Amino acid sequence: MSRFWSEVTKNIKPYVPGEQPRDKKYIKLNTNESPYPPSPRVIEAINTMNLDELRLYPDPECTDLMNEIIRFYDVNKKQVFVGNGSDEVLAFSFKAFFNAGDTIIYPDITYSFYPVYTKLFSLSPEVVKLEDDFTVNVNAFCSRDNGIIISNPNAPTGIALSLESIEKIVKTNSNKIVIIDEAYIDFGAETAVKLVDLYDNLLVIQTLSKSRSLAGMRVGFAIGHEDLIEGLNRVKNSINSYTLDRMAIVAGAEAFKDKDYFETTVSKTISTRAYTTVELRSLGFEVLESSANFVFATHPKFNAEDIYKSLREAGILVRYFKLDRIDNFLRISIGTDEEMKQLIIELNRILPKID
Amino acid sequence: MSRFWSEVTKNIKPYVPGEQPRDKKYIKLNTNESPYPPSPRVIEAINTMNLDELRLYPDPECTDLMNEIIRFYDVNKKQVFVGNGSDEVLAFSFKAFFNAGDTIIYPDITYSFYPVYTKLFSLSPEVVKLEDDFTVNVNAFCSRDNGIIISNPNAPTGIALSLESIEKIVKTNSNKIVIIDEAYIDFGAETAVKLVDLYDNLLVIQTLSKSRSLAGMRVGFAIGHEDLIEGLNRVKNSINSYTLDRMAIVAGAEAFKDKDYFETTVSKTISTRAYTTVELRSLGFEVLESSANFVFATHPKFNAEDIYKSLREAGILVRYFKLDRIDNFLRISIGTDEEMKQLIIELNRILPKID
Repeated sequence: MSRFWSEVTKNIKPYVPGEQPRDKKYIKLNTNESPYPPSPRVIEAINTMNLDELRLYPDPECTDLMNEIIRFYDVNKKQVFVGNGSDEVLAFSFKAFFNAGDTIIYPDITYSFYPVYTKLFSLSPEVVKLEDDFTVNVNAFCSRDNGIIISNPNAPTGIALSLESIEKIVKTNSNKIVIIDEAYIDFGAETAVKLVDLYDNLLVIQTLSKSRSLAGMRVGFAIGHEDLIEGLNRVKNSINSYTLDRMAIVAGAEAFKDKDYFETTVSKTISTRAYTTVELRSLGFEVLESSANFVFATHPKFNAEDIYKSLREAGILVRYFKLDRIDNFLRISIGTDEEMKQLIIELNRILPKID
Repeated sequence: MSRFWSEVTKNIKPYVPGEQPRDKKYIKLNTNESPYPPSPRVIEAINTMNLDELRLYPDPECTDLMNEIIRFYDVNKKQVFVGNGSDEVLAFSFKAFFNAGDTIIYPDITYSFYPVYTKLFSLSPEVVKLEDDFTVNVNAFCSRDNGIIISNPNAPTGIALSLESIEKIVKTNSNKIVIIDEAYIDFGAETAVKLVDLYDNLLVIQTLSKSRSLAGMRVGFAIGHEDLIEGLNRVKNSINSYTLDRMAIVAGAEAFKDKDYFETTVSKTISTRAYTTVELRSLGFEVLESSANFVFATHPKFNAEDIYKSLREAGILVRYFKLDRIDNFLRISIGTDEEMKQLIIELNRILPKID
């Protein structure tokens, strides 16, 4: 604590990202990265860039990347905002669309950055409990006349809402912003981008960190009504004119261009998820039905924190949250088939030693 | 304007960066980039990176880059904060150290992002007029007991304050934060980093966009007392855990490692600035004494906006600000010798046609 900190700085509770230990080589199943490298097109484009041009500022409009997003989603330029990862886009959205004291509604179990933004921007949170089966109670988000943020599929549960449910929430809160955070959408849920022409209160946020294998390059974006996008641009241009560097713009654009690679790696992850789910269940785990690139699992006999620690010792990182209602769960990112086989082998070895 | 914008979003006046036209090749003397490519070490390191790892999140601590900054400035890790360009670091500083309604003092003619941050974070600006010769009235910043931000050297004037003057301001405002924005420090002024062990209210901010030829990679940093740095980290970690991507971290670290290249390119710019100043003066321009990688010049006979437009037509971009007191000035970045010769040739051709 410092006498120079602002009140906000004193009171915020910063987000803690998944650990990234540098002591040895781990099988990393803790931060939902893609196990597959970026598209060969990304690699090729970076390798043929004129690096002398790094002396020059990037294009503040990220035109080349914007054009690919526009093409992919069949939207227009004024409906797209690009930022430094979806976290930055989320933060800018909170700043752009909420006043201090406004209420924002989100589930009790969801992406743990939402409460951080809520505190940072002095909003008033209303936390809606997930059902006992960890599904979202859709009706609790309808006709609320308050800001709403929902992760679809939800994290860390992996459970998706149907597009109909999303539309119902958006439609019945037409006077307030509804933000749908689609970080994991490509792994099995239906995007709400197709609704942005119908509802001016809907903002859809996505990232290239998961399904497009670019966590290391920090690229995220939002799609919504052009007035919302203009609001985001006003905030961004009051903070930092250039949030994406030259290489991130190139990498992002190329990742979008390679639709085949994207589809192939996503379907590999989906099939590895099916394998992993079956194997975990045969070990006695309860595994929630996931539409994301991770599974959320609990074992009725073994303590999740113990499993987490034993796996870590064995060189496998998974994510454990010491939080109410989910403190006996593990969130396990879907790696390659080989990595998941290794996980199952280690679990077979570890579990009997735990009790 | 949208019914969904927050009050802040409605009221802010976003920063407008220098134009980056894509229609043709210009001699770019308008955004103070280095005319020299990044160090060969930067190019080499990027070319030998394992690009498959771009699938993984970057190191949130930016350890490799931090270590180089620490080594270069002989400070410790807890005294350094790294961000996405100095603009982001400035924005986070405003959030970390000021409450809404707080007063912040800066000169009337300075980096035009300061009023933007002031508005964004609902601060109350106190604007101190530069003297008629565009120097900072140091006494007007002493014993003020309010937040202060000063660019040293100042932009767009290029005029530097002595370290003694900076120390006087920091020392006499010991209960409030003094931010020294040293974006251009390497081109002829003395850094206040050497004062950070003495004053816990001093925050020094620098960028790799100018003297280290990395505008395209978005790297900036702050050095100050560890409590201030902790405050910045709290804000950053409440917005975006990873503001620098993998390539920016590598590029920044390598740029710092190559001290020889840094010193060589900086001294080339200084000598080209001397040449440019002489030539402009011989054309009748009044040129302020610059300690930065640009000069600020006015011509008693010709209108600055006309010169700006004619130069643009001739394929040379310089910066023109239509602002009170400086609306007959041009800010001209220092390019290579060849580029500045071209500028002088064009001015010789253009000026007689203007009147």
